[in-house]
Amino acid sequence: MSHGKQFTLFTHASGPNGWKVAIVLEELGLTYESIYLDFQKGEHKAPDHVKFNPNGRIPTLIDHKNNDFVIWESDAILLYLEEKYDPENKLNVTTEEDKFVLLQWLFFQASGQGPYYGQAAWFTFFHPEKIPSAQERYKKETLRVLGVLEGVLSKQEWLVGGKPTIGDLSFITWNQFALNILNMDEGFSFQQEFPAVSAWHAKLEARESVKTIAEIKASVKK
Amino acid sequence: MSHGKQFTLFTHASGPNGWKVAIVLEELGLTYESIYLDFQKGEHKAPDHVKFNPNGRIPTLIDHKNNDFVIWESDAILLYLEEKYDPENKLNVTTEEDKFVLLQWLFFQASGQGPYYGQAAWFTFFHPEKIPSAQERYKKETLRVLGVLEGVLSKQEWLVGGKPTIGDLSFITWNQFALNILNMDEGFSFQQEFPAVSAWHAKLEARESVKTIAEIKASVKK
Repeated sequence: MSHGKQFTLFTHASGPNGWKVAIVLEELGLTYESIYLDFQKGEHKAPDHVKFNPNGRIPTLIDHKNNDFVIWESDAILLYLEEKYDPENKLNVTTEEDKFVLLQWLFFQASGQGPYYGQAAWFTFFHPEKIPSAQERYKKETLRVLGVLEGVLSKQEWLVGGKPTIGDLSFITWNQFALNILNMDEGFSFQQEFPAVSAWHAKLEARESVKTIAEIKASVKK
Repeated sequence: MSHGKQFTLFTHASGPNGWKVAIVLEELGLTYESIYLDFQKGEHKAPDHVKFNPNGRIPTLIDHKNNDFVIWESDAILLYLEEKYDPENKLNVTTEEDKFVLLQWLFFQASGQGPYYGQAAWFTFFHPEKIPSAQERYKKETLRVLGVLEGVLSKQEWLVGGKPTIGDLSFITWNQFALNILNMDEGFSFQQEFPAVSAWHAKLEARESVKTIAEIKASVKK
């Protein structure tokens, strides 16, 4: 790839998992070229992408400064970037036990937050028929996940290690996505129902990296 | 906890994620006391469990030889057990790059396999109304995940590092679970449709640890 940047990021204009990786690349000051795949055209399932990522989903990252090492699954990518390119542990924990707690939160994000929020979106926007009981199921699950975070964040400022880490940042793009759905319900108030989560989310949104990505995202969508 | 074993494992008589952890505990010859929570009685959401695991799901592991360290999320638990208690890397990879590829597969298991297979089961067995389009969606997704594995395992024997690791073992209990659903369809043949996955699955099922857990599981269900 001849763009001269360290990384190639196969991503998507609106998919939360790709923007999550872009945020951490910005945080660490790393250079990357984003390739926005057109899902309508099936580019994520096409040979030029699947040869790197057999799952045919985004994000997929190639590190041109490490023999074109390829890695996919967004939270595995965050861990790769941290271990390789954050020598001062700006966004990482430092004790052995905290490393496992960080993994625990990343797996909760990957298995609990992303898939259930994604199904909520699916049955709200994309499923060929309206199925209120399925919409309800995933909306309830979204609120349940926010409730788990609320319980923890009402007692501590950050998920692990007493500082913001990739564990916290891993949740931001899907939470932004979920708010688009939850805010459709007039009676919903993020601040009132999840005060600790909304304060945490606001602090993460105020980070330069997240603001930069919001601007890039807006320009890509135009 | 006065059972005298190294670990307490909060788990469930049939949930795949708990048995996955038990398999790796058996592999490593570690001692553990399983506490089977009764979901009908809400024991997973009760204070005695939620004080350890705010997510209120299983598995949750307590390591009594490490100051009662608590960890939840099954794949984070597997990584904990490997890093702490598999000094010979019996089920682990050894190069730095392979460690990230292992993480990638564990996150694919956690975000791709578990949740989608779980939704297939939900709409097949538990949802209050029959919704063919939802059942179809998750059955297709289950077959898609098996197809991703088939593509990789038709070219290599194991997912990473040229040997069986926790990456491979992490898939076994959910694949067993999915086969219960897929085999309900008379036209389905695991061996014919996914020859590489079925051969890999059979090799994993032949391991002593997996056979031991199958016996324990059968006795618990009685």
